[in-house]
Amino acid sequence: MEKVEPKILPGFMELLPQDQIKFNKMYDTIRRVYEKFGFLPLDTPILEYSEVLLAKAGGETEKQIYRFKKGDTDISMRFDLTVPLARYVSQRYNDLSFPFKRYQMNKVYRGEKQQKGRYREFYQCDIDVIGNETLDIVYDAEIPAIIYQVFKELNIGEFIIKINNRKVLNGFFASLNLSSKITDILRTIDKIDKIGKEAVKLELMKLDISEDNSNKILEFIAITGSNDEILKKLVSLNIENKTFNEGISELKQVTEYLKAFNVPEENFNINLTIARGLDYYTGTVYETNLVKYPELGSICSGGRYENLTEYYTKQKLPGIGISIGLTRLFSQLKDIGLLDEEDENKSITKVLVMDIDNKDFSYMLKVATAFRESGIPTDVFYENKSLKAKMKYANKLYIPFVAIIGEDEVKNNSISLKNMFTGEQKTISIEEAIKEIKENM
Amino acid sequence: MEKVEPKILPGFMELLPQDQIKFNKMYDTIRRVYEKFGFLPLDTPILEYSEVLLAKAGGETEKQIYRFKKGDTDISMRFDLTVPLARYVSQRYNDLSFPFKRYQMNKVYRGEKQQKGRYREFYQCDIDVIGNETLDIVYDAEIPAIIYQVFKELNIGEFIIKINNRKVLNGFFASLNLSSKITDILRTIDKIDKIGKEAVKLELMKLDISEDNSNKILEFIAITGSNDEILKKLVSLNIENKTFNEGISELKQVTEYLKAFNVPEENFNINLTIARGLDYYTGTVYETNLVKYPELGSICSGGRYENLTEYYTKQKLPGIGISIGLTRLFSQLKDIGLLDEEDENKSITKVLVMDIDNKDFSYMLKVATAFRESGIPTDVFYENKSLKAKMKYANKLYIPFVAIIGEDEVKNNSISLKNMFTGEQKTISIEEAIKEIKENM
Repeated sequence: MEKVEPKILPGFMELLPQDQIKFNKMYDTIRRVYEKFGFLPLDTPILEYSEVLLAKAGGETEKQIYRFKKGDTDISMRFDLTVPLARYVSQRYNDLSFPFKRYQMNKVYRGEKQQKGRYREFYQCDIDVIGNETLDIVYDAEIPAIIYQVFKELNIGEFIIKINNRKVLNGFFASLNLSSKITDILRTIDKIDKIGKEAVKLELMKLDISEDNSNKILEFIAITGSNDEILKKLVSLNIENKTFNEGISELKQVTEYLKAFNVPEENFNINLTIARGLDYYTGTVYETNLVKYPELGSICSGGRYENLTEYYTKQKLPGIGISIGLTRLFSQLKDIGLLDEEDENKSITKVLVMDIDNKDFSYMLKVATAFRESGIPTDVFYENKSLKAKMKYANKLYIPFVAIIGEDEVKNNSISLKNMFTGEQKTISIEEAIKEIKENM
Repeated sequence: MEKVEPKILPGFMELLPQDQIKFNKMYDTIRRVYEKFGFLPLDTPILEYSEVLLAKAGGETEKQIYRFKKGDTDISMRFDLTVPLARYVSQRYNDLSFPFKRYQMNKVYRGEKQQKGRYREFYQCDIDVIGNETLDIVYDAEIPAIIYQVFKELNIGEFIIKINNRKVLNGFFASLNLSSKITDILRTIDKIDKIGKEAVKLELMKLDISEDNSNKILEFIAITGSNDEILKKLVSLNIENKTFNEGISELKQVTEYLKAFNVPEENFNINLTIARGLDYYTGTVYETNLVKYPELGSICSGGRYENLTEYYTKQKLPGIGISIGLTRLFSQLKDIGLLDEEDENKSITKVLVMDIDNKDFSYMLKVATAFRESGIPTDVFYENKSLKAKMKYANKLYIPFVAIIGEDEVKNNSISLKNMFTGEQKTISIEEAIKEIKENM
């Protein structure tokens, strides 16, 4: 028979079991934290009507969509979890309780140009809170408080949640009569780490911005310090613009609430240069960085939006949300070696039961059943192979214990339990073995 | 702004949060059992090269595929988890340990004709064991032993795992010189419950099968009883056909091992009428029924195949696997009311913290943080609404406790804890509240 080469599409992540176990651990941790904060699970279809999914999209997004026809139906694959949320909340409005807090952790699809670190299929782990007409500013602090808990439990090193408020940005640029140029200005500012202050100034002036205003912009984005210091400096700018001052007041409330949420000051910092999606966010915005690996970029971003569902319904539903791009994050952490675990933690299975002479499975099954009934994930090696081959299997899968069974063990109702990491082996009763394995779980 | 009607494609299941919680519980239970038996997680891409995914497919399957072009690439959505497994094992052969035991619980896609109970996007929860060249017959018993454990823990009522062996069927029909007609014969036999014995006999004879042979077929499929009785009757047919007798011997071994796996006899039964996918399975085959709801059909099916990967590699990799179609099962169970749970179990969140007069969040946050740190999933109601509205929110989400905070509670470092199901309310310390909530978790 002619063979087809077994391969996957470029830009798709597929893991070996050892890595999949690590990935799932991260996934489970995020999910557990989301649930601990009262978020409800959601699982929307991956395929939707193009008309519905692309109600808002345009430009770059639309080009990346996987879109096709099946019969007469124009179908698209979801490219994020926010648009399906908007559709869901509009459609199920009468069945939901508000504020509606939901998490969704599923795959999304973007046919991006191929480049390192970019995936065409990837997990987003989203939480959003959707209010009915209004949504209290305290939620702008709850979201980063949850993210703080997530990254603390993921245990992947120091991190900082950067916070800004679009009203501060919008108000500031309005006060300079530069509202129409915000997009270009922010894009220019974004390059400051790469090209330096002087080059940014020149580029700003190329946008027909006066030298005076260019200087003011550079001064503005140079405001750094502790959260309190930044807030004071912002106030001292004495800008008389309603939006600007609303933004300051919101930033102030959010940082105060964050303290009440017990989030340490070292883990969140006002940063006036972050803006996020310009046509979307209207208030608080977030980015998150690993302190030692700023080159990874933001590993968790989001913000507040005025009206989630304007393309689908007349109801005004403001919300706030954040997203972890888990596939990309996982791949980055793996690349920099942050996922190297102790061998003891690499296996879900905690013990492999095997016999020496492949004579009789019944005692093996008795042992395995006893292990499983006491909550120990247990594998059994049934194939007629050498003891060495069986040991190699346990080794390769990082299974921490093997329970070896021979004639003597069957006779004495015992097992020889070997710790695969210390090499220690002893002949003990099934109950003692259960105790020993559980102590090491 | 013109609105787009928010709706989803027909044939796609999307749940309200209360149902999603139930769905996830079932999903988590299945996953936990699979892991307890030593299966490794896998998560393959939903999109694959059409050439790879359709290496084997044809006929009905191919028509149902969601297939499209992106640029020059011919892409298909996976329609099951077995073909991706075959591709994966071929591609990663050198990185895997055999027997390779994997579970995958993800969505698959079939653009089927619309009909009740059929989904175009649905979860399959698969386990497979893949051997290298050989795979011991004991795995044919381990698979139903796992399924037994799954359905016991899912707790959805009495069930029976039906077991047959394709070699028994193939050998039997070969002994009648009817090998070429097996497909048609089995399709006819399948109607026996609907149209009765006599009508089946007439249809068999229409297939150019002699009356004598038709009678033998009817006698054969009428063999029922306990597993031992069926095995005895099969032997007493005295059919001299190697395949047939191999099949009997395998069936015998599997039923014996199942006893060793502690699976009660009432939960598995040899059934000579089940055959499953005819071009695929070669040995043991399974179906599973709910005893009280046979009309649901098989809720979990699978079997042994000679060579998983023949389309991709020269290695001979026999395997055995089984699949639970969770989306369909969930929908069926919901329809017949088998998913109605105690109200106490309908919420992941165990307590809602709320204040009476929306004055100060800091004490609320302190309480919520204490709850969460002790492992209690906790929601907080921050919106400025009436106490009645807040209670309604807790009620609608079936949250079992509310922690009410007013001036007195803040002053005395206490909370008023209300049990939403008994109506009982008492003012106690945070520690006492934690104890009370956890006792009811």
